[in-house]
Amino acid sequence: MDSHCTVTFLPSDRQTVVRTGTLLHDAAWQAGIEADIPCGGQGRCGRCLVRIEKGQVRRRPNAHLTDGQVALGWALSCQTEVRGDVTVFLLPETVTEKVVVSGTATIEGPRSVRPPGDPVISQYPLDLSPPDLQDSAADLERLRRALATGPGVRDLQVDLSVARGLGRALREQKWRATAVVEHPSRGRSARLVAVRPANAVGASLGAAVDIGTTTVSVVLVDLQSGRIIDTATSFNRQVSCGEDVISRIIYSLRGDGLRRLQRLVRETINNLIGELCARHELEARQIDHVVVAGNTSMEHLFLGLDPRSIREEPYAPLATSFPTVSASEVGLRVNPEASVYCTPAVAAYVGGDITAGILSSGLDEWDGLALFMDVGTNGELVVGNSDWQVACACSAGPAFEGAGVRCGMRAITGAVEDVTINYQTLAPTLGVIGGGAPAGICGSGMIATLGEMFVTGILDKAGRINTAIERGQGNDRRRIVATDHGPAYVLAWASESGTKEDILLTEVDIGNLIRAKAAIYAGLTVMLRALDIDLKDIETVLIGGAFGQHINVEKSILIGLLPDLPWDRFRFLGNTAALGAYQVLVSRQARRQVEEIAGKVTYLELVADNSFMNEFTSALFLPHTDLEAFASVKEVLAQVSRNDAQAAAAEERKGR
Amino acid sequence: MDSHCTVTFLPSDRQTVVRTGTLLHDAAWQAGIEADIPCGGQGRCGRCLVRIEKGQVRRRPNAHLTDGQVALGWALSCQTEVRGDVTVFLLPETVTEKVVVSGTATIEGPRSVRPPGDPVISQYPLDLSPPDLQDSAADLERLRRALATGPGVRDLQVDLSVARGLGRALREQKWRATAVVEHPSRGRSARLVAVRPANAVGASLGAAVDIGTTTVSVVLVDLQSGRIIDTATSFNRQVSCGEDVISRIIYSLRGDGLRRLQRLVRETINNLIGELCARHELEARQIDHVVVAGNTSMEHLFLGLDPRSIREEPYAPLATSFPTVSASEVGLRVNPEASVYCTPAVAAYVGGDITAGILSSGLDEWDGLALFMDVGTNGELVVGNSDWQVACACSAGPAFEGAGVRCGMRAITGAVEDVTINYQTLAPTLGVIGGGAPAGICGSGMIATLGEMFVTGILDKAGRINTAIERGQGNDRRRIVATDHGPAYVLAWASESGTKEDILLTEVDIGNLIRAKAAIYAGLTVMLRALDIDLKDIETVLIGGAFGQHINVEKSILIGLLPDLPWDRFRFLGNTAALGAYQVLVSRQARRQVEEIAGKVTYLELVADNSFMNEFTSALFLPHTDLEAFASVKEVLAQVSRNDAQAAAAEERKGR
Repeated sequence: MDSHCTVTFLPSDRQTVVRTGTLLHDAAWQAGIEADIPCGGQGRCGRCLVRIEKGQVRRRPNAHLTDGQVALGWALSCQTEVRGDVTVFLLPETVTEKVVVSGTATIEGPRSVRPPGDPVISQYPLDLSPPDLQDSAADLERLRRALATGPGVRDLQVDLSVARGLGRALREQKWRATAVVEHPSRGRSARLVAVRPANAVGASLGAAVDIGTTTVSVVLVDLQSGRIIDTATSFNRQVSCGEDVISRIIYSLRGDGLRRLQRLVRETINNLIGELCARHELEARQIDHVVVAGNTSMEHLFLGLDPRSIREEPYAPLATSFPTVSASEVGLRVNPEASVYCTPAVAAYVGGDITAGILSSGLDEWDGLALFMDVGTNGELVVGNSDWQVACACSAGPAFEGAGVRCGMRAITGAVEDVTINYQTLAPTLGVIGGGAPAGICGSGMIATLGEMFVTGILDKAGRINTAIERGQGNDRRRIVATDHGPAYVLAWASESGTKEDILLTEVDIGNLIRAKAAIYAGLTVMLRALDIDLKDIETVLIGGAFGQHINVEKSILIGLLPDLPWDRFRFLGNTAALGAYQVLVSRQARRQVEEIAGKVTYLELVADNSFMNEFTSALFLPHTDLEAFASVKEVLAQVSRNDAQAAAAEERKGR
Repeated sequence: MDSHCTVTFLPSDRQTVVRTGTLLHDAAWQAGIEADIPCGGQGRCGRCLVRIEKGQVRRRPNAHLTDGQVALGWALSCQTEVRGDVTVFLLPETVTEKVVVSGTATIEGPRSVRPPGDPVISQYPLDLSPPDLQDSAADLERLRRALATGPGVRDLQVDLSVARGLGRALREQKWRATAVVEHPSRGRSARLVAVRPANAVGASLGAAVDIGTTTVSVVLVDLQSGRIIDTATSFNRQVSCGEDVISRIIYSLRGDGLRRLQRLVRETINNLIGELCARHELEARQIDHVVVAGNTSMEHLFLGLDPRSIREEPYAPLATSFPTVSASEVGLRVNPEASVYCTPAVAAYVGGDITAGILSSGLDEWDGLALFMDVGTNGELVVGNSDWQVACACSAGPAFEGAGVRCGMRAITGAVEDVTINYQTLAPTLGVIGGGAPAGICGSGMIATLGEMFVTGILDKAGRINTAIERGQGNDRRRIVATDHGPAYVLAWASESGTKEDILLTEVDIGNLIRAKAAIYAGLTVMLRALDIDLKDIETVLIGGAFGQHINVEKSILIGLLPDLPWDRFRFLGNTAALGAYQVLVSRQARRQVEEIAGKVTYLELVADNSFMNEFTSALFLPHTDLEAFASVKEVLAQVSRNDAQAAAAEERKGR
């Protein structure tokens, strides 16, 4: 016997009827509310708190809730079953911020974009002779003939839905039209993707999509010229079903979890495309080709492929090269016949974002030894040159992208992106994107804050805030405060901030950031040792990833995120995945190249290396337990120490 | 303002609510009743009669209804709008007979079927090594690797739905499985169409489909061995929306007519496939490849392509080569990834059934001059040899297939397939398929009846029945009867027939048959003249089409359906379209060949030839106005005349 209950969600007052036993999270989803479950529904993070206002529920046993909390009605939405009519209060959502930023900046790197000399999509104006009794060839054959004799396009594959509209289109346009043709690639023939009115030349668009675990970017391109029209970025709506890849995979195993995740990323992309097209008064149906780059899990979820084996040893994913699909198959609201190509992955944790990144960074064409780093929710490292490449992945977590950090945010208007702290006064000077009031801290701001806190002695090498520090002047003396997440340093007071709350960095935040940087550095150390490469032999460090454009080398080395190499060896390339996807979008040569890269890169499994955990533990310090590996930092600390001693001496002299 | 009415259909008592103004035919469709409209809804044939029992309708002006009929409630369902709540009585349906015949006979011709040396579909047993940390290649890549190193299948295209099930399939089957691969054809790469359990070898099936205007045949094939498992045939359910191609095209122009027609033929095919699979305890999902042959209009309707330009001068169809689609795209209930290939057409009225027919007849490999004839609802003629082929089409109509003939039926159990009539007594001797009581007359039976009536003098050369004939004995004297379709000859009395009604051939039936044979013969005459070929130079006549296996050469020449050539020049090949589709199903070489044929055949447009109507008129006699062209018939008639004279003389002697 099934019984049903009504669940009412506050403050929105939305209602839904569910079967008894349904989880509150699923009930919310059914009511059209994307309530966050950051760990994917494992009951592990304890962050999907809701308050039961009325009615009966069953809480599965969970260590995150104290008896006192339960008495006050608190429950975890992923661990609580509906047992009768229930009213539930949802906390304000934290990660559903849906900001769209724009401009081509995020994919401008130092490398020039290849000219589209070998386009994927071409447009051909046609002026056909109308049929008569002497030449009554079929419409489609007439078009084939014109494409074969004119531009030399042969063996044209025509999809059914394009064929269906052909007769009417040609007759209405009096046998003049523009044929949009996708050129053949490996294992596929040329395809007719659209027949447009004759005056539509110039209107074939493309979209390069970077699906990050945390953020998604879409680059809108004029395929005729290869020109980038605009770029838009937003949070990946899947974040509500898990903050990291593992949580998403766990979520995908629930009932229709996989379909939900697919829908969420599809909606994220469709919204970005809609936004871009609306802004430029273009039709999304003019988008005739889409290239997607993402990590292996993101590409699986986008295509609706089961990702479960990605988190199970031996980490063999379902696919690393992906079926090319039509837009209609995956629900993208563009030309339904547009083919959607996912860049190939190397392994479970080195995905199509990395092959696209290698392509756009040019690592595969580098003469000297180079290191490519992509720091996103995961950190991937590739070492190599034009002959060989070896890649590994380290689970950094999304801290540098603003998740798991109380005042974290992405690098958009209002984000603190640079910080200097006065050694004497402890007063910070903030660089805020857009120049207005600060609203939060983005990745580069976190690195800068951490570095400054460290060199000014606010933070010790173990990541603990020195609450007994005696420097500071006036109000700034009080910048070290106590919070429920331990001591914190206040970058901006509530009165100065755009959110009307203190902008601060807590010890818990700092712990997350240190773990993230330690994972990356440990991966680098293990990989270089496995390859018997000395760090100093690396001639160039190519930095990609979502925040790979703004970070400060000096401060990154200071905290041990980047290795201690001369600053001029670092090159910041911006969003290399989006840039690579763009290149594959406009050039068949680039597509072949990214496939060659995927076939050539050797994957190094860090889990198989026993030394990784030791290296990780050693890296959980600022900059590292082995200060000899960070000679430049040692020098800075020594200088600070001398300054400190001089200042103390001066103070002492003054005091006498 | 929209108002709605309830329409009740008797005798089934089904009800539906429609908008005021809806045609009765559309209301019936909405109620799930396929009421026949033989002319496609033009109001031209007057045969979709229904009786209004109650309620208000508006009859569009139509010459087919007399005032008296209207007063009695009669109406045409395609020309009558609902104006209020209405009760309608539907006459028993005439063409929805849904008989499935079986056995491989219909596609056994004198030509041996090519061995499948170059298969379209192969099955490869796989025994993959499970992934481990040393080799964590993705499932799909593991499969690709095995197919590349084993059978040498490279650049494998994998469709999304196959990829989706791959991980689970391989793991559940412990890395042993059977990969079903479609080999590359022009412009397409090898495709993975299924991954089946390891013990499923031998289970890949194929279906060759012949879509005739009147009948549809499906040949079920074991793709491993190329063996034909079984064949099934039924009426094309589209017949309810128009008996001939032109009526169907007109029907397709109504509202969702095109979608309805597509659905009807899809259902016809799915039913046949279901029937075949059920009988042999096979799964329709094991059907991994489908080849469809049909005339140009049938192929358009099957794919949902707009056929309207096929009936408009200059008769340029939308397509003559068709997109290869997946079964799921066209709604066939087989493996959704099975590709569905339609054999290419030559022109609007020389379709994929003819190119398949040329292929299976071997005309394109013939050394001497040959004539290929396909007599179905249309009659198509091809003259040529291995160097060249010229084709034309003549609108014969469906009379020889049993439609438009009162007691017509297909060549199934109970059909009269052969007739001899005793000159003296006028008594017929019937050959009945299956040997039981006769239920109707099939094409070969009509030819035989016509020929026998002609030589026995029951029928004159203009197709009129001699009601004043004085021969006949006993009961058989009364075999010439009067009907509402003019005089008729009774082949079987109601008491002897399986239908409990007289089996007879009326003058109206005879007129239809003569017009059909005249169209074919006129087409042949015009084509040979255009090519400057003497009939006598045709060394071989290859006869295909739905009834091309059973007809009697002598009697066909007698009525002028076949040209007067020595009997040993005729070869009866059976259903050449189905046989050709079968060849294309099992052999890529055959597919290439049918495409070459389509590219090579020259189409001769009879409409462009002024002499066609004259030739047609001349052929509206038995055997023809020009008896010199039928020397053998002239000889027979002379012999009959002599016998007649002798008999009369004998009678006279007796009487003395």
